[in-house]
Amino acid sequence: MWNERIAEEIRGIVGEEDYMDAPEDRIEYSYDGYIPEAMPEAVVLPRRTEQVSEILKVAYREGIPVTPRGAGTNIVGGTVPVRGGIVMAFTRMNRILELSPEDRYAVVQPGVVNAQLQTEAARHGLFFPPDPASLAVSTIGGNVAENAGGPRGVKYGVTRDYLLGLTVVLADGRILRTGGRTVKNVTGYDLTGLFCGSEGTLGVITEITVKLMPLPEAQRSIQAAFPDLDGAGKAVTRIMASGILPVAMELMDSVVVRLIEEATGVGLPQEAEGVLLIMVDGPEAAVIQEVERIGELCREHGASEVRVSRSTEENEALWAARRSAFAAMARSRPTCIVEDVTVPVSRLPTMVREILSVAQKHQITIGVLAHAGDGNMHPLILCDRRDPDEWSRVEEAVREIFHRAVDLGGTLSGEHGVGLAKEPFLPLVMDEESRRLMRGVKDLLDPKGILNPGKFV
Amino acid sequence: MWNERIAEEIRGIVGEEDYMDAPEDRIEYSYDGYIPEAMPEAVVLPRRTEQVSEILKVAYREGIPVTPRGAGTNIVGGTVPVRGGIVMAFTRMNRILELSPEDRYAVVQPGVVNAQLQTEAARHGLFFPPDPASLAVSTIGGNVAENAGGPRGVKYGVTRDYLLGLTVVLADGRILRTGGRTVKNVTGYDLTGLFCGSEGTLGVITEITVKLMPLPEAQRSIQAAFPDLDGAGKAVTRIMASGILPVAMELMDSVVVRLIEEATGVGLPQEAEGVLLIMVDGPEAAVIQEVERIGELCREHGASEVRVSRSTEENEALWAARRSAFAAMARSRPTCIVEDVTVPVSRLPTMVREILSVAQKHQITIGVLAHAGDGNMHPLILCDRRDPDEWSRVEEAVREIFHRAVDLGGTLSGEHGVGLAKEPFLPLVMDEESRRLMRGVKDLLDPKGILNPGKFV
Repeated sequence: MWNERIAEEIRGIVGEEDYMDAPEDRIEYSYDGYIPEAMPEAVVLPRRTEQVSEILKVAYREGIPVTPRGAGTNIVGGTVPVRGGIVMAFTRMNRILELSPEDRYAVVQPGVVNAQLQTEAARHGLFFPPDPASLAVSTIGGNVAENAGGPRGVKYGVTRDYLLGLTVVLADGRILRTGGRTVKNVTGYDLTGLFCGSEGTLGVITEITVKLMPLPEAQRSIQAAFPDLDGAGKAVTRIMASGILPVAMELMDSVVVRLIEEATGVGLPQEAEGVLLIMVDGPEAAVIQEVERIGELCREHGASEVRVSRSTEENEALWAARRSAFAAMARSRPTCIVEDVTVPVSRLPTMVREILSVAQKHQITIGVLAHAGDGNMHPLILCDRRDPDEWSRVEEAVREIFHRAVDLGGTLSGEHGVGLAKEPFLPLVMDEESRRLMRGVKDLLDPKGILNPGKFV
Repeated sequence: MWNERIAEEIRGIVGEEDYMDAPEDRIEYSYDGYIPEAMPEAVVLPRRTEQVSEILKVAYREGIPVTPRGAGTNIVGGTVPVRGGIVMAFTRMNRILELSPEDRYAVVQPGVVNAQLQTEAARHGLFFPPDPASLAVSTIGGNVAENAGGPRGVKYGVTRDYLLGLTVVLADGRILRTGGRTVKNVTGYDLTGLFCGSEGTLGVITEITVKLMPLPEAQRSIQAAFPDLDGAGKAVTRIMASGILPVAMELMDSVVVRLIEEATGVGLPQEAEGVLLIMVDGPEAAVIQEVERIGELCREHGASEVRVSRSTEENEALWAARRSAFAAMARSRPTCIVEDVTVPVSRLPTMVREILSVAQKHQITIGVLAHAGDGNMHPLILCDRRDPDEWSRVEEAVREIFHRAVDLGGTLSGEHGVGLAKEPFLPLVMDEESRRLMRGVKDLLDPKGILNPGKFV
């Protein structure tokens, strides 16, 4: 139980400047990108691994919940401190400790913002492939905790694929170092991978070593407008089967296109039912050939308009518009739910139709935005949570969408995680044995259940 | 304790044809690619997951060790049944159950040989990137259990990066399904990753879903001969910093070159101190440019001879020769120890010098073969184990090589695993907390310690 003595002890560890418990500060850390809210007792902003360790020793002794937090951009309630206790925000552990251009790795603190690492890496001709839409603010620590993906996942995979090693503080304050600085490393169990995607429930990550990749010589994007969504979906599977490996391949339906266009005026085709935005990278000569071939394949599937970006600026403008989709959608109605179902790529056209039919059936607005190249779809549900009738229809629609995705060989979350939002649906994709093993791992690492408690495990 | 009643029960599960306990059969499964030998009580060749489950139920009840085995090509003693019991060989679970060209995945049984999957994937314009030198015989089950790499690791990573889901039988016979068929999947802890590289100590893998990649349009290889090894090492770090991402970049010293040439006559330059064999792939136009640039960089670092493969056949011949290295070396002396140290790429020239100086100091022959592009080195120690004096010098040399690698920021094993061979050295690269956590995970999954007992955990 939280009390003044414990508050004093915690305050003593981090110092006055990095400790907050005024109501207005606690409110700031009581919510994230999802719906629920819960007040913490205190917020700490540690500066060193040793402080994190000291805080956890106290929390462990006293049974106080600790919820680690990056930028709070997750949209599944993963950083909401549902059992109160301490929110540990990594805002002040935001330094890039080392960047080796020759060995292509960086060692960073968890509060380093994804874009900050990109900027620094680019100075050495490198980049960090995971690119969640939130990259301008989301942190590497959060990216690791959620195993974040992004549009570039089609070619480059997800955060786990770029993780070489971690420093983790365990529930009782012990400090663990996993992995190393080499890409190949098979000495013992993959503990690094175990912490990645564990959403703060197994340990608190305080240092991260990531692999960087050489920046490609050229990047080009194509935008193709399709009179019907089905043609766009089929073009996706056709391109993926053609031998070309695009960096990113985004599908937007007319709802999403209209809202992005209203917000950015970037010039997306308004009359199309589906728009594909596809990026390729690599040596200039190859990129030019690939863009041409992709354009042909789009036209073969009925694309009425195919535009190719002619410069880096034009390319960047298109993708900035795409990244603004969530914000654009969120402006249009009081509540915007972003789902994250994922299906095998060949099932994409079917899943798009299923989502549209669910929307029609329940008379709600769903915009379809998909990282189409890896089958990862974000149905954007626009509604008003305060309207009980509409809300119950939304809840039913979400349930149906999850079931359809699983029936098609897919899963509930591609890159956003489980958090609070997906927890009730986990049995759909995880058998009882897997959930039992997960709980066993949780009990082993956090026997008192103080790390981000009340979440999916 | 093994007895006739248990033997009967096990025989009853798999049937007469898939059960062996004659001494000559047990001897065949008493060793692998490393030195130690130990006799199992029986060998079973299961055909279905349910049989594996039934066998494990009996083994769990009776406390009988079970050692899963693919092709036994590992060179760390990982499949030697040091505590006796049952060897479970997957020779008869060797079918590709499904291959989806559109969704780029395959579902395979663990006994499918790597080359068999490559052949089937190639029919659909796809490939499975992990390419251990043993690929003609080693199994996908073994590749997963060891998290195998291979030359292509520079560009394409290791087995873990292509693993979507697993069926695993736990120690007590329960059956677990992890992951799925989609590339992006973040519902809960990464159990798939936990089993990958666990060397048969956490569960028995009976079905594997892997991601496949599109076969590149073109592949070209360059062979560059350097009068001194140091120049070759420097060329490696220079190429890796140039923005080009080769598929593979192999470094061979004069000992290795001579023995390969004697065995294959493929035409490697005999007078060089170091030879680089580099492969690039991608669209034809890009590949041609990259090969030219790599050639220039090699010449700038003193390469006296640079040859480019002009056809697929020439390319294949060069790589087949490289893959024969272990066999060629093994012919030359009674004992050949293959080490697997890995350092950050920039430390490669230093590590090469360290190895050569260790060899000289202890008056033993060490050939240097390296997957240079990812810093993964295989010092090949040629000796005679029956000579106690030479053998003690070899043991001392191995110890020194491990310590040097770790001092340079590296690790003991890049892709071969721990098995019996590296177990004593694990504390060099894993802190006490990590080893404790590993043991905790082992106890959680295998409380009676029946799965591949006596190994590293």
